[in-house]
Order: sequence, then structure tokens, then C-alpha cells
Amino acid sequence: MANELAIGWLGTGRMGAAMSRRLIDAGHDVTVWNRTRSKTDDLAAAGAKVADTKVDLAEAVDVVFIMVSRPSDLEEVIAGDGGLLSAGSLPKVIVDCSSVSPEVSAEVRKMVTDRGVAFLASPISGNPHVVAEGQSILMASGDKSTYDLVAPLLNTISKTSVYVGDGEQARIVKICHNLYLGMLVQGLSEVTVLAEKSGVPRSAFLEFLNNTVLATDWVRKRTPDMLALDWTPTFTTELLRKDFDLGLAVARDQEVPMPMGAGVMQLIQAAIMRGHRDDDFLSLFAEQADSAGMKLEAEK
Amino acid sequence: MANELAIGWLGTGRMGAAMSRRLIDAGHDVTVWNRTRSKTDDLAAAGAKVADTKVDLAEAVDVVFIMVSRPSDLEEVIAGDGGLLSAGSLPKVIVDCSSVSPEVSAEVRKMVTDRGVAFLASPISGNPHVVAEGQSILMASGDKSTYDLVAPLLNTISKTSVYVGDGEQARIVKICHNLYLGMLVQGLSEVTVLAEKSGVPRSAFLEFLNNTVLATDWVRKRTPDMLALDWTPTFTTELLRKDFDLGLAVARDQEVPMPMGAGVMQLIQAAIMRGHRDDDFLSLFAEQADSAGMKLEAEK
Amino acid sequence: MANELAIGWLGTGRMGAAMSRRLIDAGHDVTVWNRTRSKTDDLAAAGAKVADTKVDLAEAVDVVFIMVSRPSDLEEVIAGDGGLLSAGSLPKVIVDCSSVSPEVSAEVRKMVTDRGVAFLASPISGNPHVVAEGQSILMASGDKSTYDLVAPLLNTISKTSVYVGDGEQARIVKICHNLYLGMLVQGLSEVTVLAEKSGVPRSAFLEFLNNTVLATDWVRKRTPDMLALDWTPTFTTELLRKDFDLGLAVARDQEVPMPMGAGVMQLIQAAIMRGHRDDDFLSLFAEQADSAGMKLEAEK
Amino acid sequence: MANELAIGWLGTGRMGAAMSRRLIDAGHDVTVWNRTRSKTDDLAAAGAKVADTKVDLAEAVDVVFIMVSRPSDLEEVIAGDGGLLSAGSLPKVIVDCSSVSPEVSAEVRKMVTDRGVAFLASPISGNPHVVAEGQSILMASGDKSTYDLVAPLLNTISKTSVYVGDGEQARIVKICHNLYLGMLVQGLSEVTVLAEKSGVPRSAFLEFLNNTVLATDWVRKRTPDMLALDWTPTFTTELLRKDFDLGLAVARDQEVPMPMGAGVMQLIQAAIMRGHRDDDFLSLFAEQADSAGMKLEAEK
Repeated sequence: MANELAIGWLGTGRMGAAMSRRLIDAGHDVTVWNRTRSKTDDLAAAGAKVADTKVDLAEAVDVVFIMVSRPSDLEEVIAGDGGLLSAGSLPKVIVDCSSVSPEVSAEVRKMVTDRGVAFLASPISGNPHVVAEGQSILMASGDKSTYDLVAPLLNTISKTSVYVGDGEQARIVKICHNLYLGMLVQGLSEVTVLAEKSGVPRSAFLEFLNNTVLATDWVRKRTPDMLALDWTPTFTTELLRKDFDLGLAVARDQEVPMPMGAGVMQLIQAAIMRGHRDDDFLSLFAEQADSAGMKLEAEK
Repeated sequence: MANELAIGWLGTGRMGAAMSRRLIDAGHDVTVWNRTRSKTDDLAAAGAKVADTKVDLAEAVDVVFIMVSRPSDLEEVIAGDGGLLSAGSLPKVIVDCSSVSPEVSAEVRKMVTDRGVAFLASPISGNPHVVAEGQSILMASGDKSTYDLVAPLLNTISKTSVYVGDGEQARIVKICHNLYLGMLVQGLSEVTVLAEKSGVPRSAFLEFLNNTVLATDWVRKRTPDMLALDWTPTFTTELLRKDFDLGLAVARDQEVPMPMGAGVMQLIQAAIMRGHRDDDFLSLFAEQADSAGMKLEAEK
Repeated sequence: MANELAIGWLGTGRMGAAMSRRLIDAGHDVTVWNRTRSKTDDLAAAGAKVADTKVDLAEAVDVVFIMVSRPSDLEEVIAGDGGLLSAGSLPKVIVDCSSVSPEVSAEVRKMVTDRGVAFLASPISGNPHVVAEGQSILMASGDKSTYDLVAPLLNTISKTSVYVGDGEQARIVKICHNLYLGMLVQGLSEVTVLAEKSGVPRSAFLEFLNNTVLATDWVRKRTPDMLALDWTPTFTTELLRKDFDLGLAVARDQEVPMPMGAGVMQLIQAAIMRGHRDDDFLSLFAEQADSAGMKLEAEK
Repeated sequence: MANELAIGWLGTGRMGAAMSRRLIDAGHDVTVWNRTRSKTDDLAAAGAKVADTKVDLAEAVDVVFIMVSRPSDLEEVIAGDGGLLSAGSLPKVIVDCSSVSPEVSAEVRKMVTDRGVAFLASPISGNPHVVAEGQSILMASGDKSTYDLVAPLLNTISKTSVYVGDGEQARIVKICHNLYLGMLVQGLSEVTVLAEKSGVPRSAFLEFLNNTVLATDWVRKRTPDMLALDWTPTFTTELLRKDFDLGLAVARDQEVPMPMGAGVMQLIQAAIMRGHRDDDFLSLFAEQADSAGMKLEAEK
């Protein structure tokens, strides 16, 4: 039974904390570790054990979930000095939920499986708030048997998990998701500007769109920001560009033309150069309005 | 009270029948007319009166809703021989739910209001099935007081109605909706092909996407068609091109650049020329796969 | 022999004057007419006769060339009050060198040929300076026998003439030329900005390009303007947009996708909305630099 | 005096032979070396000395020009076993005329200058035929004093040379040239297809274009291939894609949006996937025609 597995969680920043919390709250045996130990306090209060070192974590559990910010962190916590792989006894499975490129994922997978530990790439779609509500979703790729083993845990963390292949496909699915998001936002920007310049209040147009079969939770949630012209970053234009870098590299590698994806990339680039580098990428809407000679005003 | 208004319904094809049926089922006093009278039989069985002529219809009611297929039909039923405006006494309001261009709408509005009849443009988003379930949505534009008068009726036909302006804006909103749909389908096609060529089964990718914050009812409903590669038309590529013709004309008129919209138009054009003219426009997906050198196979 | 034909020239603005002057200087018998008569003085001094009215012109010659600014002028001088077609005796051939759409051209052609007069559409590529140097080129479409009759005259006006079809193809060729020009300028702008931002002085890059197999007379002539950032209009961005309107309409009519042409159109639109409406369309280069976050400075 | 410099030439394939031949024919003292020695026979007959080894070459001359096919060859002949840098005495200057990326160029430059040898990057625009006619052009970047020293030699090889910066700018200029070529070909394809589908014979349209201010030597030379639909490769679509890879990478690095360049890249990718990988890249024209539903036929 999956719920008899001893679980380790490495990386309890905002996302990692929200994700591990769901396992703890479901009654699992969870041991956590974080570079800044204080970030594990709430989880300990909720019932988690806290490991002193990564090695301790590795030796105490069957499955280690990892959620760190950068590719370099991922390599460090696994294979660096005092990393998981330097433990005396190793866990059966490592599940990485971080967002890294297919290339980094493949390198890490090799390091891990060369030591006899199974590896699952399992990035997540959703922010901490969505995770807490149980509305996130996990992709997973690696050996099917490994997926089957930890699927009950994945499905406790998130609404559901989808097994997408035996290699690095989960990374690619995450990248595709973000490409799609960027294209959707540009499309939304074009029609919203067109409607508004034609005399339709932005609020009316978005209210309409949010009631159609094309409505998405994402646009619904961001509608207040589009009305208020609030570009406080949830995800910056520069970060979106990084995802498009990855996505277009995968497309080039697979020899897939991306007429719309490549076009949106150029618009992202122009938005960055026109001053929206550190704004939320929803500022693509502001750029589209500028290019149409519109002076936007905040609406309620 | 709106529900004391005597209602006329002109045009009881598949959409018109579904829409008027909701008014009848809600207990309103509804008189219907259709060129082919037999198409009113079910409505009559459900409680509607049937007018013999358009003039009879006009003289019997306060509000006439119109749902016809073509701009020429719209002009004919209103101002042609025996049309609504040739009646001895005229209704207070005409509400047109057909899909026509802003130009035609403005012409018809002028003909109607010149005779002292209020006019509301109120196109619909949804197909007959969606309408029957009460999940469609109506846009409306014209005098605000006219909208207020008939809003309870609009909100009986559909889930909700959105007032978008005092001119032809409802037509433009409908066009924007369809532009957005076309862009969304192209974006979806690009990422789905990219994922599939990278080794992710189409079904897994779409299952994933349908569980994210970017999920739409539209994609959920069309997922089986994308898996089965079923391009039986619900709306042909050529019809989508017509909407893009209208949309790009509005954009040109408003001086709004549409980098993505114009790009998708060229892809629609190419799809038509490569054989998908009469296929469902979801065949844009097939074209995207072809351009990536992929041989798609049906999945379940 | 063509050189025995009596020639009429209607419209002696800058272009018309330069063109007709070449016929006069070659020793042809030329009668001119212009709305503002003073604009015929130089031509009269060079040996031209001057007609008092359009009717006089029509009655005096075998072939009338027309060079006017607007479609409405063209229709007026041919079929308006006192127009060519109201003359007692009509010329054998009318050759129109103005820039009008294929639709207007077809209408005018019909009016003319219905009266038994042959009609040739023959727009020109080149400005007055180029014409004076004998370096312009004429396209021509209409009956081949008509072309053969006047070809010696066309080849006197310009370096050469090319017969492109028996209908309105000459208009389409002119439009294609201008579409190509717009695309070439955008392409030039992208690579010049890329080179300059990479540290290559603009003057060095253009000097290089002007010496390669991709060099054009057009870019050579405009290089000083690109160096000086001089957007004094020779042809405004708004006028280029008009040509793209025509070109994309022909493409839509012929069902030809224009991925690059349609993309450039959106950039033209954005350049207009960002303030370059009345600048020379070479200001597309300034827009490209802006979108790359570059602050251009004039070079010598 | 530059003509007193002893010149070495490494790499006498088709391009290298044509280039070095111009120095020999101008009376310079030239020593050549090539991996396949027989390819130096014609040059020896024309007056060149032939070195037995790269080291011999390095020790015999003041300036070594290099023209090899691949980046790996370049690194090998300079720094590999028996490479130029392993000689007992080194030349003063190495001029590399090969086509390599800015990154490789910077690496090679460092290896060379670390040994006290000056380095000039000087790629060429033109094919062997163009070179032989003295119509090629060289870009150059590196220390200005080095350029000044060898400029007389560069200007003997080619029509002219342009100094474009003190780093790797010459590589970037070459890449920009090829990006421009790709965009120009796509633009040409769109308007030629549009004209032809509108009824203008391809030969007439191209004859026209080749007489305008937009004419290029390149299009003039390739017109017979466009008429004959001859895609025998002079430069394959796949090679053009490689240049676009480089170009878009430079653009990304410099943060320059390339709306048209990136769009053409997708069309190149699609052309490759639709079967034109090993065809001449002029087959973009065939793809454009296909996308417009045209069945092209060869013309004379």
C-alpha cells in the first residue's frame, strides 16, 4: 500500500510547503528537510518530522519528493556534498516536482538511476493557493511501475495526476502548458483590445467571455488584474520568455514548426524591451493596447 | 413586467427552436412563425401559438425575436414584401439574435428604428444542445432601456446576458469570441503536436490540459474528436475564415494590429487550400501535424 | 507605325509631366491637357500642343494616356461631364498609367470598351527622377493587340514594358511590387537592428549589404535616410498600408495565404498607431529599433 | 606594403581555390596547403608554392588565410596536432574566411591571440563563380590595425571589404545577410504566387521585378530555377535553417524581436518536414504555391 511508504520532502518553500502539507493532513508519515529550517516549523506543527540533514532524510524514508527553485539546486541536493546520494542507505524512489528542462531532467535521472534509485519527473500545474484547495494537477514521467507505486501519493497532493511517458515527457508537458498559456494571453489581449476600442467596456467583454465555453479558470482569476491594469508580478514577462526559450528549443529539436508560438515569443521579447521585463506577463495586454494606440484606464 | 410582454419568434430552425422553447417552457406567451411551417410543430405542441404570416406575427406581439441564417434573410423578413415592417401595427421591440456583420446590423437597425420600433442586437454563444441545457450566453447592444425591458427574457433563454454597448458592439463581441476560438485552436494544435511528437500520447496530454486552469468546456467537448481525428463539421474551416474576414475588417477599421489573429488567418487559408475547406475547423490540428511531418493516428 | 500615332496626355502632374516629356523629347506628336493648365507650360515649351478641354484632347488624338492621382479622378476624366467619352469622335486607345485597384480598373475598362475604345492598364514603377533618367518600367495588361500597338510608346517612356495579361493583371503586379517592397523593408530593418545592436555600425552594415548580391537600387538610394534617421515622407506609412489593404484583398480573393505579408501589415498598423502615420514608411526601421529597446542615433 | 607580405592559404576547396587564385593572379607570393594535396595542383600551376604540412605553411609566411568547411576543421587546423599553432615560428596574422558561429570565432580568436598572433574574422559573401569574377565581398572584424594591414589583400580577393567591428561582428554580419536572404525569398515567393494565381505568367512577373529598383543580382540569377522549378541544391533548406538557428540565437542573445525572421524560420521548418530538406531553399517557393493550392508548372 502506498500509504505505508515513509515519505520524505526536500524543499519546503511556498510550493513545497503547500504540497507536503496535503500529505501530512491525509495522515501520511512525512519527514521534511529545508535549507532554512524555520520554513519547516508549520509543517512540524502539523505533524511532520524534521530531518537535520539531507542524508538523514534519505536514510529515513522510502520516497523523497523534491521541490526546489533552480536546476542547480536540484543537482546539488541530489549529487552535491551531503546530497541524497551520499547517504548510507538510499530511498527507493525520488520524485522531482521542480521545473527544469528536459536536458537537466535526463542528467539527474541518470545520476539517480545509476545508483539503483527509481526516478519520477513530476512537475505541477498550479500555485500554492490552488494546491491548498486540492485543485492542482501533476504530470508524471518515468518507469510506469514507479508511477503506479507513488500515484496514490500524487493523487493526494493534487486533484489528479497524469502519466505521460517513460522519459522526460512530463517536463515537456509542463513547457507545452506554459506555451499554451502565453498564446492564450496574447489571443485574449488581441480580442479584448479590439472589443474595447470598438466601444465595449473591458469589464463587459470579460464578463461575457468568462461565461462562454471558452472561459478558463485562469482568465477568470486574472480578470480583476486586467480591469485594474495591475501588473504586479505573479510570473514575470522574463520568466515567460524563459519558458518560451525552452519550448521553442524542444520544438526545434523535434522539428515542429510553431507559427503562433514563435510569433508570441517575438511579442514577449518586444514587451520586455518596452519596459515590461519585471511586470507580470499579463502586461502583454498593455503592449497590445499600446500598439493599437489606446490609452487604457483602470476599470472596476 | 417582462413576463407580461407578448412574445413573437421568427425563425424556428435548430437554434431558434431551442431558444424559443426555453421561453415557452418558462410559461411565456409565445407566437412563432417559420418559413417552413412544419418546423413549428414541436413548439406548438409545447404551447406556442403559430402565426400564418410575418405580418400576423408583428401585429400580435410586443417583442419579436429573430433567428435566421443569413444577412439577406434578416433584411427580407424585416423589410421585404410581407415583412414585419409592412404590418398595420408594429411591435415595440425587435431583437435580432442572428449572426450578421456590424454593417448589416447598423442598416437593419436604421430601417427598424426609423419606423419607431426599438432594436436590440443580441447574438448568442452556444449550440442548440448548450441552449437546451440553459448554458448559452447572449450579448446585447442597443438602447439601454430596451435591453432593460427584455433582459428578463434574454436571461430566460440563456444562462445570462451581457449588455455591451449602445450600438453594434454585440456583433463585434461575437466576432471577437470567434477570433479567440480560432487562435485558441491553433495554440492548442501547436502544443498538442509538440507534446505528441515528443512522445506524450495525445490522450494523456489532453487529459492533463483538461484538468488545468487553462481547461475550457470547448476543448473538453472536442477532445474525443481530436483523439478520433474526426473532422465531421460542426463549423467548417471556410465558415471560420468568414468570421476572421469580419474580425480582421473590424480590426482594420479600428486600426488595431492583430499579430496573432492575422497569422492564424493565413493558417486557416492554407488549411482550406490543402483540402480542409468543408471539414470542421478543428482540422487545423491535422494541418499543424502535417507541417511537422507527423502521421497522426486515431486514439481512443 | 506607332510613331505615327497622334498622342494625347491627360494629367501632367509630376509623374505625368516626366512621362509625357519622354515622348515629346523622342519627337512624337503629343497633345497635353491638365486641370491646372499652368502645369503644361514646360511641356508646351518642349514642343507639346495643349488642348483646351478633355473633349478637344479626345478628338485630336489616336491614343490618350492618363496619369491622375485618384480612382475618382480617373472615372471623372473618362466618364464624367465633359470627359473623354463625351467627345464627338473617340480615340482608338486609352492607356491608364494611374494606380488604381483591380476593381476600379475593371469598371473603367468596361465603360471604355463598351464605347468601342481599346483600354490598356499600364501602371508604372519609378518616381519622376527615375522616369526622367529612362529607368522606370511599365507593366501592361489588356488585349495583346492593343499592347502591341502602343508598346513602342511605352518603351519610349520607360526602360522597358512587360505585358502581364489580358485583364487587370498589371494592377496586381503593381500591388505585388509594393507588397514586396514592404516585406523587404521589414526584413532589412530586422537585420540592420540586429547587426547594430551587436556592435556593427549601421553605415558599415549597409555598405556591406549594398555590395552583395542582395543589393537593390532602392536600398542604395535610401541608405542616407536610414543613416540620418530621416523619415521625411516619399511615401507615407499610411499609403503603404493602403497598398497592403489592396494586396491582402487580392490575396484573400485568390485564396493565397500570405504569412509574411499579413505579418508585415500588422507591423505597419502598429507603426502608424505609434506615431509614424505621416512619416515615410522607412520609419518601420525606427519601430523595429524601438521594439528592440535601442536608442538610434543619426550616422553619416 | 601589404603586397610584400608572404601569404599562406590553408584550405583550397572550391571557395578557397577561387579566393587564393585572385591573390596569385595579382602577383602575390602565395603558399598553399590542403588536406587533399591534389586540390592544390591548379594553384601550383598558376604560380603558388605548396607546403607539405600546416607547420611548414605557418613557418613560411606572414599571414595565413583559412577557408575550411566546418567549425571542427577550423579548430583542428589551428590548434590540433600539427596545427598552425604547433609551428616553431608563428605567422603575424591569421585571417579566417570560414563560416562559423560567433561563439566558435571567439574561442578560436582567444587561442590564436593568446599565442601573440593577430586574428581577423573575415567571412565572404559570394560563390566561387562570383569570386572569380571579382564580385564577392568580404566582411572583417578584429583589431583595426590588423584589418588595415591585410585590407589590400582582402580587396584583391574581393570587390571590396568592409570593416564592421573589433570583435566577432563579421560573423554576425554574415548571419544577418543570410537571414535577409531567407526573408527576401519568402517575400518573393508570396508575391510571385499571388501574381501567378491572379493570371500573370511567372516569367512576366519576374522579368518585371528584375527591371525594378527592387531587383537583386541574386533573384536575377535564380530566375531560371524559379521558372524551371529546379530545386537542385546550391544551398539546402536544412542549411538555411542552420543559419536561422544561428541568427535567432544572436537575436535572442541581443534581445532583438524578429517578427518576420522568426516567422520565416517556421516556414523553413515546415518546408523541411514537407519534403524539401535536401532541396535548394528556393523550394520555399514551391511550399508557398502548395499552401495556396496551386499546381505549378515549369516555364521557360
